[in-house]
Amino acid sequence: FYSSQVRKCTMIPGDGIGPEISQAVQKIFATAKVPIEWETVDVTPVRGPDGKFGIPQAAIDSVNRNKIGLKGPLMTPVGKGHRSLNLALRKEFNLYANVRPCRSLEGYKTLYDNVDVVTIRENTEGEYSGIEHEIVDGVVQSIKLITEEASMRVAEFAFEYTRENKRKKVTAVHKANIMRMSDGLFLRCCRDVAAKFPDIKFEEKYLDTVCLNMVQDPSQYDVLVMPNLYGDIMSDMCAGLVGGLGLTPSGNIGINGALFESVHGTAPDIAGQDKANPTALLLSAVMMLKHMGLVEQARIIETACYETIKEAKYLTGDLGGKAKCSEFTNEICAKISAH
Amino acid sequence: FYSSQVRKCTMIPGDGIGPEISQAVQKIFATAKVPIEWETVDVTPVRGPDGKFGIPQAAIDSVNRNKIGLKGPLMTPVGKGHRSLNLALRKEFNLYANVRPCRSLEGYKTLYDNVDVVTIRENTEGEYSGIEHEIVDGVVQSIKLITEEASMRVAEFAFEYTRENKRKKVTAVHKANIMRMSDGLFLRCCRDVAAKFPDIKFEEKYLDTVCLNMVQDPSQYDVLVMPNLYGDIMSDMCAGLVGGLGLTPSGNIGINGALFESVHGTAPDIAGQDKANPTALLLSAVMMLKHMGLVEQARIIETACYETIKEAKYLTGDLGGKAKCSEFTNEICAKISAH
Ligand SMILES: CC(C)[C@H](C(=O)O)[C@@H](O)C(=O)O
Ligand SMILES: CC(C)[C@H](C(=O)O)[C@@H](O)C(=O)O
Repeated sequence: FYSSQVRKCTMIPGDGIGPEISQAVQKIFATAKVPIEWETVDVTPVRGPDGKFGIPQAAIDSVNRNKIGLKGPLMTPVGKGHRSLNLALRKEFNLYANVRPCRSLEGYKTLYDNVDVVTIRENTEGEYSGIEHEIVDGVVQSIKLITEEASMRVAEFAFEYTRENKRKKVTAVHKANIMRMSDGLFLRCCRDVAAKFPDIKFEEKYLDTVCLNMVQDPSQYDVLVMPNLYGDIMSDMCAGLVGGLGLTPSGNIGINGALFESVHGTAPDIAGQDKANPTALLLSAVMMLKHMGLVEQARIIETACYETIKEAKYLTGDLGGKAKCSEFTNEICAKISAH
Repeated sequence: FYSSQVRKCTMIPGDGIGPEISQAVQKIFATAKVPIEWETVDVTPVRGPDGKFGIPQAAIDSVNRNKIGLKGPLMTPVGKGHRSLNLALRKEFNLYANVRPCRSLEGYKTLYDNVDVVTIRENTEGEYSGIEHEIVDGVVQSIKLITEEASMRVAEFAFEYTRENKRKKVTAVHKANIMRMSDGLFLRCCRDVAAKFPDIKFEEKYLDTVCLNMVQDPSQYDVLVMPNLYGDIMSDMCAGLVGGLGLTPSGNIGINGALFESVHGTAPDIAGQDKANPTALLLSAVMMLKHMGLVEQARIIETACYETIKEAKYLTGDLGGKAKCSEFTNEICAKISAH
């Protein structure tokens, strides 16, 4: 039976508050008897034989073997030539779709109480191609690269995700009125895929219009699919509506594996003080469980987490409470055990 | 004396509700005895001798002569080969900075009551360069073009605007962590200009971070300057915070002239029925007056408009009221006359 078999899972604890929130997740998973064995790896770049910095081979091998991983926040090393480690991982494992669900949490009040949207972001190309030139002095061009292959792949993922999660509508977000060829191609791919999913509503909206609508009435959106940069900003904006990056999960889906991660920072100011909020990483781990088919365990952990926030007895400092990370974690564990 | 001299001003009433809201503005201006003579022109594209569609020469001449214009919403003609008329005008008159102030309006409640930001958008290049290619089948590149010239120009405008309007801080919004060369160049220009304005605070923020912060606490921002596409979305998002495009003005500043415009649509469904809200166009006209140095008249009209909205006796349908466009307009005129 698939879900009772112990599976290996790569854990990248990350920097700053990474280790403590990773431990919180591991404790909660153990309490919920999730059949997962963690393989912890370090991704701090090492200098290779060619003199260039790269992700350690042991970390790469671990993810490639396990095909699934959980990752805490990473510090991008300072200094020229270092690109974001997050980007390096997306590239290394060809993580083509970034999925960020944002839901209003009962118990943590923001200006909005009706947010329930999922941003699905093309994660490999677009404005993130990294191709740039200085044509002449003072004239630079950056290339936004849109391919049919990557657009079809993420559009198909978006519709399949929508169906599997019993959602109703996919909105393709674009500026094809301006970037007629590139966003035009992305849009055409979305239309082609939409035609194969007659049970799912499909609409097309301009990025600026979605930004405007989203802050006025987020309930009109469901699943959103879009090129890389648009997804970067839309997912952060939606996270803002429900309380910020400390509360929202993220998953990167690839062809040969998937990496789930909290997308908040490393918070060096509170690192090691048992003050961090593990919610974003925990909810990312819950997404990971669903992705692995461990839906029952996912549901139990998710419910315990939501309940703990709703009761508001053990909230961490970022949510206006005074609880330590370990107290918040213990309360979730207690709820799981009482289940 | 500059401000008592009658000046000619081009008026582009636009399509749909354009004519009625333009008339509302003209009536209010006449009541306030603004020393402006309107020169009304039509910008509906005409086929030139080369067979291509373009803005009528008479309209171009009028703006070039008067160096100032007010513009209602324009319908983009359907069919291949027609680019947005708004973009064509920006290009024709080299309108390099788009300025969009967004302020919470007393009397019109939204989720936010503390918005007072100005988005300053580079308006000529960036993602709007229009340069696109299909490299091979299914692989498209769009070029984002950033030049030192345009970046310096808009950065200088932003700081001068900030100083003139007695504002405190400029935030440069970018993704130079991703587009190192292009956004990097934009950012360096902002830094260089900032160094010449020691009285104004300067900060740099990632676009995604600003989107997140803006929906949580807009009061932390003041004047924002950024490349073209970022400004497109940021200005719409900020408009959303205070009630939408029907309430927010916009100005396009060029080297040889300036064009002020409402950026909402033509609303064909209510056109010609005396139902439209002229606020966005009126506030754009107020921006125009300030730009022309007619600050006293600007203040009187602006105050009458804000008061009318605050009293909420004569609100149009879009604001939840039942007043006709003419009733709203008449109330503003009455307040101006009573002044
Ligand atoms: C850290 C940064 C490179 C990254 C991005 O721009 O994609 C981040 O904002 C994200 O959304 O994961
Ligand atoms: C109409 C469209 C071309 C335009 C743009 O994208 O700039 C609009 O959204 C705006 O902000 O003025």
